[in-house]
Amino acid sequence: MPRYRITIEYDGTPFSGWQIQPTMPSVQGALIDALERMTGSRPQVTGAGRTDAGVHALGQVAHFDLDKAWLPGKIRDALNFHLRPHPVAVIDAAEVAATFDARRSATSRAYLYRLLVRRAPPILDRERVWWVPVELDAEAMHASAQTLLGRHDFTTFRAAQCQATSPIRTLDHLDVSRVGDEIHILAEARSFLHNQVRSLAGTLKLAGEGRMTPAAVRAALDARDRSACGPVAPPSGLYLTRVTYGGAD
Amino acid sequence: MPRYRITIEYDGTPFSGWQIQPTMPSVQGALIDALERMTGSRPQVTGAGRTDAGVHALGQVAHFDLDKAWLPGKIRDALNFHLRPHPVAVIDAAEVAATFDARRSATSRAYLYRLLVRRAPPILDRERVWWVPVELDAEAMHASAQTLLGRHDFTTFRAAQCQATSPIRTLDHLDVSRVGDEIHILAEARSFLHNQVRSLAGTLKLAGEGRMTPAAVRAALDARDRSACGPVAPPSGLYLTRVTYGGAD
Repeated sequence: MPRYRITIEYDGTPFSGWQIQPTMPSVQGALIDALERMTGSRPQVTGAGRTDAGVHALGQVAHFDLDKAWLPGKIRDALNFHLRPHPVAVIDAAEVAATFDARRSATSRAYLYRLLVRRAPPILDRERVWWVPVELDAEAMHASAQTLLGRHDFTTFRAAQCQATSPIRTLDHLDVSRVGDEIHILAEARSFLHNQVRSLAGTLKLAGEGRMTPAAVRAALDARDRSACGPVAPPSGLYLTRVTYGGAD
Repeated sequence: MPRYRITIEYDGTPFSGWQIQPTMPSVQGALIDALERMTGSRPQVTGAGRTDAGVHALGQVAHFDLDKAWLPGKIRDALNFHLRPHPVAVIDAAEVAATFDARRSATSRAYLYRLLVRRAPPILDRERVWWVPVELDAEAMHASAQTLLGRHDFTTFRAAQCQATSPIRTLDHLDVSRVGDEIHILAEARSFLHNQVRSLAGTLKLAGEGRMTPAAVRAALDARDRSACGPVAPPSGLYLTRVTYGGAD
């Protein structure tokens, strides 16, 4: 059975998240439904990242096996036809080796978190950003972020319902920059804990307001205590932007 | 009576356009309604550009007079409160001289037109771009655009229902560039004819497909004939981005 990798964009707003649910709309479920309309069968679809309700993707990656060979461009176009009217689109499709696993083969995941920093509410980007109507110091946020890089126990920045066996992760990048009236947080790691990026974003926002120093942010990490985390940032500002694979795939 | 200038962002999708209509939702009507809830009276609101149905604004400018003086920040915040749930927000407010006229004092208007060039439909930017699923040559589009700069009779690129007394306009900038998987057209002039930017965008798209040479685009201008224009581009890709005023205002 040939295996295919797809790169997917979606608007997380109407979904209960990536993962298929019995009664709620999910991105994985929308893809399986579209594959069924296209092929007549319901393959298993494995995604690189299990994004939460309301979280968006510009470059989620998934794989599935089909009974017969399809031209990748045909898979992309047929899935986009059958995905309508769900806000999900296949940007790219490719045939991959049977050993490729969208989840387990990934060597790096990149997320973007967008904060809109202005008095006026978001309009063209509503449901696309976290609206913060008070001034934030992006440089202070970046300085705080740098104290979190490297291999640590990220229990502080992990949801209570996180199912990972270990709270140890290696945070490779956590860059904060101002882009017009927005602040962008770019996070990159081999893998993340549940709610880790939103927990980091919520804590960095406190640093941007001057309510936490870089040392206090680092102390929160070292506390390994969920109660040391700032309020978790809303899902609307979060995007899974890119998944990297080390091998030829 | 003190006069105020506001800078406005809006999502044009649900509106019949800028201009107030007896039975249809308009941006101007939403602003007058919000001003009535805020002040108890319905001032006249004059905008710099009368955008069409579905056209967006990042920096529309308008002015109005109030019976008593308000702090500009208070006007911004109170209007944003009363504008809800309309997708309109006041980014900035300022008191201006009684001689300031958002429409007549403007010395330049800038528009952005966004084309999404890829096989997959727009998702996070649906209703925000013109989806073009065929490849376009941005350099050919830019070369064609440069043949249109300067003072000309723009009858070819003017809607039949245009109410301007003269079809003569001076096009100062028409720059085409590729930005990721989008093509952006930046247009700037003291003023534009009705549908001019969308007519230009539709014609430049033909140039991008190789269906018109720069010389053919220039010949279409010189024909001064509406039938020489390409199909008018859809409103969803168009943004009024900035209005410039020459004086201290």
